[in-house]
Amino acid sequence: MTAKLWCFGESGNAYKAALTLELAGYDWEPVQVAFFSGETRGPDFIGLNEMGEVPVFREGDLTLTQSAVIQLHVAERTGKFLGRDRNEVLRWMFFDNHRLSGQAGPARFLMNFLPAEKRPAGAIDYLQGRLRASYKVLERHLEGRDWVADAEPTIADFACCGYLFYPEPFGFDRADWPRMGAWLDRIAALPGWKHPYDLMPGSPADRA
Amino acid sequence: MTAKLWCFGESGNAYKAALTLELAGYDWEPVQVAFFSGETRGPDFIGLNEMGEVPVFREGDLTLTQSAVIQLHVAERTGKFLGRDRNEVLRWMFFDNHRLSGQAGPARFLMNFLPAEKRPAGAIDYLQGRLRASYKVLERHLEGRDWVADAEPTIADFACCGYLFYPEPFGFDRADWPRMGAWLDRIAALPGWKHPYDLMPGSPADRA
Repeated sequence: MTAKLWCFGESGNAYKAALTLELAGYDWEPVQVAFFSGETRGPDFIGLNEMGEVPVFREGDLTLTQSAVIQLHVAERTGKFLGRDRNEVLRWMFFDNHRLSGQAGPARFLMNFLPAEKRPAGAIDYLQGRLRASYKVLERHLEGRDWVADAEPTIADFACCGYLFYPEPFGFDRADWPRMGAWLDRIAALPGWKHPYDLMPGSPADRA
Repeated sequence: MTAKLWCFGESGNAYKAALTLELAGYDWEPVQVAFFSGETRGPDFIGLNEMGEVPVFREGDLTLTQSAVIQLHVAERTGKFLGRDRNEVLRWMFFDNHRLSGQAGPARFLMNFLPAEKRPAGAIDYLQGRLRASYKVLERHLEGRDWVADAEPTIADFACCGYLFYPEPFGFDRADWPRMGAWLDRIAALPGWKHPYDLMPGSPADRA
């Protein structure tokens, strides 16, 4: 039975789930969501996920939302990328959700996907400041480490990298964070790795 | 062995862990952190938690950070407030971290704990808009439900309420969200419940 993942290329939160599925060799297929036409705010999508967000995962009668919950399910089901210390893996996934992707996603949206005249400068400055503090934590953590939460890659890596492969500017420059850059290179070298715009349907090019 | 929780009264993230410990009847004691004097940014605290945040939990040689990880540990250790469906509990804890407390904490900080001339209006408007969307999700979810993730209270309730009992204004008015108001009343009626400023040391009154 092929699992379905509701997603779209621009969503780093969906990418975390899609990347985990892909690298774990799961039988899955994407279902493209027309986020930029408002699909996630419509009643059909709210019926699927009351939180009004991608990703949504469905496999038989099991429906899961929140990228981290989907990642955990896939890791447990396949025995891959789970790490040895669940608490250590989970704490970086929560760090990602509230301090890294949780700030990078909105910053990237405001800076790239809103018309220039609607971009709230104060909010963008605020988010970039928060992000710098989070990059600093991760950069320091990666000293002497190859991976975020174990000696091997785990779902915590695939959470924290959620927005960091995208080309659109949102205040992250690898040159400023060399250990993070090397860590992203290690992720991209994993067998089967794909860039978000190659792994999920939809990209800014489609709307150009 | 008495567990220690590094915390301070103003931190809703610490409150989630403290409330879970208290309601589960755990043997614990608070260790006050002087956040407003910069303690969480200093080398001693970074040595304790490289993320530079409260709460930090220590019990013997086990140290845990991230409120949700501490909550999960306490629930598993005591068998209380764990709920029947881990995925459902976790998805609301992640929702809380990135959309509810993750926005309410900064909004409340910027609006109340920064000098008036340093308050970034654009960021405050942005955070309040994000919060309204999150309150809407939770208000809708609570239709016909007493608790967030099960028929009984779980750690997901004690996560989502993290900032909602505080008196300082940050754009949450119970009158606008009646189901959330009734749900908060149910939490406050649980045996042993305490307000954050009664449960943890430190409050704005100490700095007045």
